[in-house]
Amino acid sequence: MDWVRVKDRLQFSEERMQKILLLRGSRGQLDLYCLRPGQAQKPHAHGDLDKIYLGVEGTGRVTIGGEERSLEPGEAVLAPAGVEHGVINDGRDALVMLVFVAPPPSH
Amino acid sequence: MDWVRVKDRLQFSEERMQKILLLRGSRGQLDLYCLRPGQAQKPHAHGDLDKIYLGVEGTGRVTIGGEERSLEPGEAVLAPAGVEHGVINDGRDALVMLVFVAPPPSH
Repeated sequence: MDWVRVKDRLQFSEERMQKILLLRGSRGQLDLYCLRPGQAQKPHAHGDLDKIYLGVEGTGRVTIGGEERSLEPGEAVLAPAGVEHGVINDGRDALVMLVFVAPPPSH
Repeated sequence: MDWVRVKDRLQFSEERMQKILLLRGSRGQLDLYCLRPGQAQKPHAHGDLDKIYLGVEGTGRVTIGGEERSLEPGEAVLAPAGVEHGVINDGRDALVMLVFVAPPPSH
């Protein structure tokens, strides 16, 4: 059984945000994002995949389709296929998010 | 922006487990499962979709491909397309899980 305890997989870097693959199926996968304050994933778009961000720790600011809002632990947002999206840790604490991606990216 | 605060959407029933749609894209969706003690989703299989279970509150017992294990808050497991899977709340407290489904079921 492909199983993971999220807190065992946390990993931060001074250089850039860390994106850690947790679970990968043929139709969907689960990633973990770990961002120190000031780190970001710049806005970008995928024509072919949906992302769902779930806040786990800290507070981030997500941008989806030009709209911005903060994301707190226990909140989730959808970045639909084809829509530009990004996230920045604009808080003072580490930001941890779970990110569901469907379908799994080929790269 | 399609956004949701998970705790605002909790919903339990004495009759059966509750499955609540939180976010739906064209490639993936996020459901919330709320199970009182003793409630279950019986083992079943989908040929065409992956599920990822994430424990949020309480302890459940997941069965995937005939293998069983407990799922605690902050743990995630993959039920790959085509593999039989199910979950039961075998604890004494309410069980809350987030379930990523890819692709979104048509029914």
